[in-house]
Amino acid sequence: MVRVGIINVTGYAGAELARLLYAHPQARLTSVSGRSAAGKPLAEVFPHLAAYDLTLGEEIGDVDFAFSALPHAASAEALAPLVRAGVPVVDISADFRLRDPQEYARWYGAEHPAPDLLSRAVYGLTELNREAVRSSRLVANPGCYPESALLALAPAVKEGVIGPDVIIDSKSGISGAGRALGLAYHFAEANESVSAYGLAGHRHLPEIVQELTAMWPCLPAGTARAEAPQPKVTFTPHLVPMTRGILSTCYAPLLPGAVQSGEQARELYREFYKGEPFVRVVDSPPATKQVAGSNMCLVHPTVDPRTERLVVVSVIDNLVKGAAGQAIQNMNAMLGLNETAGLETPAVYP
Amino acid sequence: MVRVGIINVTGYAGAELARLLYAHPQARLTSVSGRSAAGKPLAEVFPHLAAYDLTLGEEIGDVDFAFSALPHAASAEALAPLVRAGVPVVDISADFRLRDPQEYARWYGAEHPAPDLLSRAVYGLTELNREAVRSSRLVANPGCYPESALLALAPAVKEGVIGPDVIIDSKSGISGAGRALGLAYHFAEANESVSAYGLAGHRHLPEIVQELTAMWPCLPAGTARAEAPQPKVTFTPHLVPMTRGILSTCYAPLLPGAVQSGEQARELYREFYKGEPFVRVVDSPPATKQVAGSNMCLVHPTVDPRTERLVVVSVIDNLVKGAAGQAIQNMNAMLGLNETAGLETPAVYP
Amino acid sequence: MVRVGIINVTGYAGAELARLLYAHPQARLTSVSGRSAAGKPLAEVFPHLAAYDLTLGEEIGDVDFAFSALPHAASAEALAPLVRAGVPVVDISADFRLRDPQEYARWYGAEHPAPDLLSRAVYGLTELNREAVRSSRLVANPGCYPESALLALAPAVKEGVIGPDVIIDSKSGISGAGRALGLAYHFAEANESVSAYGLAGHRHLPEIVQELTAMWPCLPAGTARAEAPQPKVTFTPHLVPMTRGILSTCYAPLLPGAVQSGEQARELYREFYKGEPFVRVVDSPPATKQVAGSNMCLVHPTVDPRTERLVVVSVIDNLVKGAAGQAIQNMNAMLGLNETAGLETPAVYP
Amino acid sequence: MVRVGIINVTGYAGAELARLLYAHPQARLTSVSGRSAAGKPLAEVFPHLAAYDLTLGEEIGDVDFAFSALPHAASAEALAPLVRAGVPVVDISADFRLRDPQEYARWYGAEHPAPDLLSRAVYGLTELNREAVRSSRLVANPGCYPESALLALAPAVKEGVIGPDVIIDSKSGISGAGRALGLAYHFAEANESVSAYGLAGHRHLPEIVQELTAMWPCLPAGTARAEAPQPKVTFTPHLVPMTRGILSTCYAPLLPGAVQSGEQARELYREFYKGEPFVRVVDSPPATKQVAGSNMCLVHPTVDPRTERLVVVSVIDNLVKGAAGQAIQNMNAMLGLNETAGLETPAVYP
Repeated sequence: MVRVGIINVTGYAGAELARLLYAHPQARLTSVSGRSAAGKPLAEVFPHLAAYDLTLGEEIGDVDFAFSALPHAASAEALAPLVRAGVPVVDISADFRLRDPQEYARWYGAEHPAPDLLSRAVYGLTELNREAVRSSRLVANPGCYPESALLALAPAVKEGVIGPDVIIDSKSGISGAGRALGLAYHFAEANESVSAYGLAGHRHLPEIVQELTAMWPCLPAGTARAEAPQPKVTFTPHLVPMTRGILSTCYAPLLPGAVQSGEQARELYREFYKGEPFVRVVDSPPATKQVAGSNMCLVHPTVDPRTERLVVVSVIDNLVKGAAGQAIQNMNAMLGLNETAGLETPAVYP
Repeated sequence: MVRVGIINVTGYAGAELARLLYAHPQARLTSVSGRSAAGKPLAEVFPHLAAYDLTLGEEIGDVDFAFSALPHAASAEALAPLVRAGVPVVDISADFRLRDPQEYARWYGAEHPAPDLLSRAVYGLTELNREAVRSSRLVANPGCYPESALLALAPAVKEGVIGPDVIIDSKSGISGAGRALGLAYHFAEANESVSAYGLAGHRHLPEIVQELTAMWPCLPAGTARAEAPQPKVTFTPHLVPMTRGILSTCYAPLLPGAVQSGEQARELYREFYKGEPFVRVVDSPPATKQVAGSNMCLVHPTVDPRTERLVVVSVIDNLVKGAAGQAIQNMNAMLGLNETAGLETPAVYP
Repeated sequence: MVRVGIINVTGYAGAELARLLYAHPQARLTSVSGRSAAGKPLAEVFPHLAAYDLTLGEEIGDVDFAFSALPHAASAEALAPLVRAGVPVVDISADFRLRDPQEYARWYGAEHPAPDLLSRAVYGLTELNREAVRSSRLVANPGCYPESALLALAPAVKEGVIGPDVIIDSKSGISGAGRALGLAYHFAEANESVSAYGLAGHRHLPEIVQELTAMWPCLPAGTARAEAPQPKVTFTPHLVPMTRGILSTCYAPLLPGAVQSGEQARELYREFYKGEPFVRVVDSPPATKQVAGSNMCLVHPTVDPRTERLVVVSVIDNLVKGAAGQAIQNMNAMLGLNETAGLETPAVYP
Repeated sequence: MVRVGIINVTGYAGAELARLLYAHPQARLTSVSGRSAAGKPLAEVFPHLAAYDLTLGEEIGDVDFAFSALPHAASAEALAPLVRAGVPVVDISADFRLRDPQEYARWYGAEHPAPDLLSRAVYGLTELNREAVRSSRLVANPGCYPESALLALAPAVKEGVIGPDVIIDSKSGISGAGRALGLAYHFAEANESVSAYGLAGHRHLPEIVQELTAMWPCLPAGTARAEAPQPKVTFTPHLVPMTRGILSTCYAPLLPGAVQSGEQARELYREFYKGEPFVRVVDSPPATKQVAGSNMCLVHPTVDPRTERLVVVSVIDNLVKGAAGQAIQNMNAMLGLNETAGLETPAVYP
């Protein structure tokens, strides 16, 4: 049994890690921390976790594997000694996602706390980066929006069927904003309302751009430039009145001759994701409810023949495939376990 | 591995059975039926169950254990041959809950389809009826409202601390109404609204009265009548705009000298439910979200000292402890398995 | 045109007053205050009120009529000088509801800030207290729960058809908790959940008891005691996941021979509320959606013949009939205007 | 007083017309029809409209003005005799929106029932077509999605600042699907879920394309083609779990040199909508809650400088500005009344 610790279990991602680990056959949660609630039993902080007999500490104890669910900056600070001590970790915060510390400083408003560790970090979108994850001891778990957008776009980008004009329109449930209070997440304000936010630039944008750029395979047909194109990504997140789930609708121009129909697009996607346990290409537009509580991502690519655009809809549970489930999937890969261990239960529907 | 069948998997209770059985270590779902969708793959009817490789039949095939999630009347008809053939079954419909076939006819508007089997049936509220369930091959799964009300009231009734004037005010999520369409369950009608219904008498009332009467232990202190009192129960169900969950608030007069405070009440309840894996007596008023997706029932008894009343609040997930989870708990007990098998995952919160 | 001011417009009750006054034919909102937002345009604080050209002040200016939507204690302090200066006011806070300052101190945890004014205050449930409201210059607007419960129970109490064992089980939308942040009102916590609260005694309980006691007409049939009974009220509020609305389900024993059926009860209620513009006795159980945004209260009395109990269901919009609408109705009565002025628009359905 | 009739009052658009007309100072609803409920009082069909003393007929009676809220095809059939008799009408259905009857047949799957009347019809987006509406007696009320998208895009199109590559991503509350039952609108299915639909082509697309094409002013800078461009529009509607509201997020490439910043874009939009009572250009991203129940449209244009795209977010209440309110605004314009009559009340917030 792998002894697992969660640093800062008191937010939604931390609690979700604890929930999912409860059913893990080869890992056991043995240590949890959370400063605001240090000294309290986990069962008191989260009544749904009453089956655990654990008390929150200021720090986690001796473990074989650690997750950090701290906010950015604090997370890198807390993880650095563990990484240096050789403990394998997954960081759910944003601290090790951007490879360029200047880009980090630009978007997160502070110097990176441990820039020397950036080169060891692997971006943990397991489906797209499996070998690197397997051999890493420091995995940066993707942001929830990038997770949904990259899984929706990767096959089209890597197979060279779309041009670089990408628009990502994402709709998220409100748990994505975390457990900290705010007027925008006050029930009477958020309920019965949809709003856009982050129009001036959301922190998940550079992460999406970094990963799309890295996977862009070659030149679009007919161009003469010497380099692969920088994808031109507009990303607009929206809050919708539900607790869990992200649906991303992604738009990009089809390159001439590439793909002619939704059926062809789905065939290409099915081939790309063949054998993946957590990505399923579906023939009808999916709903977030179909993945609630589970680690599945459903992807539905289609073609708008009137405008020759690829339109891809993807759905995930932002707290599972968009956070804690993806983190456990990464842990499994890093430790050589079955990648689906602890993550096999179906979605909770309806 | 026990081979399990679900008769009529196409409603919410049936789908929930399939979801929960997926994680059961000693049972395997091998056969599902559903007339309207016979011939279709289960994965097409319910995308969240895509991990199953099963096709719906007109009838279920050869199994070691069967659940029926058919509507009442149809359920008894479908189960009768199985029962007579010795196959152990749990009926999720109401057909075998009321012991008196005339009472059944009065509330369900039709003759009972198999009155000869009534004497074999056991009321499957495992916590209150464990030995009988263990030795039965025909278990009537409780209704969702009775489940929440009886677990809230049983300790007070059996320990003789309350008088017979009982009021049960229940609030249910809308999945309790099933998957069949109706204007009252149309999103734009049900959302942002609370309503009472069944004021003229809900079908779960005779079930509650039957079970409370059976458990009433003796005379209330100070009376001289020769018989145990018939509980005088008013039961009002309400629809609230959420998908899952029932919260029941139960009121009854305290008998003199019985219990003086909420603390004493909770002590009595804790003693009563000692060792029960699926009932937890809690010190704060519980919320339905704390049990969503799980088989837990949280019970919070308290005392209104101004009026000398016991007030008990209980919460369950209507589709789990109020239907499919309770049914699997019964199956486990009937088959001599660990009662918690397949039912151990924590609630999905938030 | 009556010049109206709102003290502390920044909460939900204050904003709702401003919304409703916009359509008032004889009153004009000319002054609004709110310390946290003083100096800001009302249109900036509340985009839905952009049609107003008003700026929030530290205090309200010179007005003919004032509403206070301050929290208790602060409200009485702010209103005292106005009352002494002869300005007619409606207080939406609890400060002038309880006639006994010791009872106030017990429930609100502080000395009453202006006990000398209590004798001038009238409890502003207009339907039950119209003449006193008309001749008062200091009206205490009822709490939202008492409003719904008293309108549901008054006819039965005043006509002497029920005994004193009263249970009130109320379900409220979350705007009732106000605009101040709290974990219980955080969207991801409150959504998809029902919970009870205030089981140890909610501040609206003494208000309900005071008013029921005052209206209890005489002795129940067959008793020999020298005084009217003190009603024995248990009141349990619940939070349900919607923004607006309260549904109260009220239970009381029918006195022998009083009322035999729901039809008779509704006849009695119809007679009682004859001519009332804002109370309608309905033949089917009402839903809160039917009154959203409006000043209507729907009341549905029925009889449980099995237990000889009266069961009454009432619905209001907690921010309108439970706060701002009731306050304007009181203003209309105090100023000799048509009581329905500004309050005639139908509910917003669906 | 204008005597007004509503043909088919039994759906949400019809009921909303009745709600809004109740407060109209110069129009009185005198006749309502609805075949399924003919003979029933309006107060029985819709309890929130109990203030009306009207009974539904098979047909409407003699009126000065008629609205049709029938489904397409039936609507044109019912309106044709009224139009021919000279009664001014607004059609809320799609029947008179598309000018080309072949396009109508393609998208609606049937021959147009009254193609001879198409030339008399005016597209009733009052803000963009005021003079034509004023002089017309047959106005086609816009679809809810086109309403939100066209108000968001019109200033940019007419002022020539964007190229033709337009993407419209719309999120709608579920009342937009109407009152007819369907599994996708069943509460337990729609709640806590977001989904895309109409990916193969929604019927509102040709309407959007027709109107955008008509308003495209001239050539984009730098092109040499002889004709105005055909806008290349991809439109994706989504269902979000709320009752009312549409938020549309619209994306288009900025033409070089046109607009450099969000501030410039908002300045241009403010100039364009100067004096419009029902369109407000806002500096922060708007939320649908800010317009619930009202006829307002809030528009927030912004610029993504990284990709040189215009991104415009607009919000409306789909049943008001997207249906009944827009229809009354059209009636006001057609009859020479103040355009805001009956439509001035602020949104119901929260």
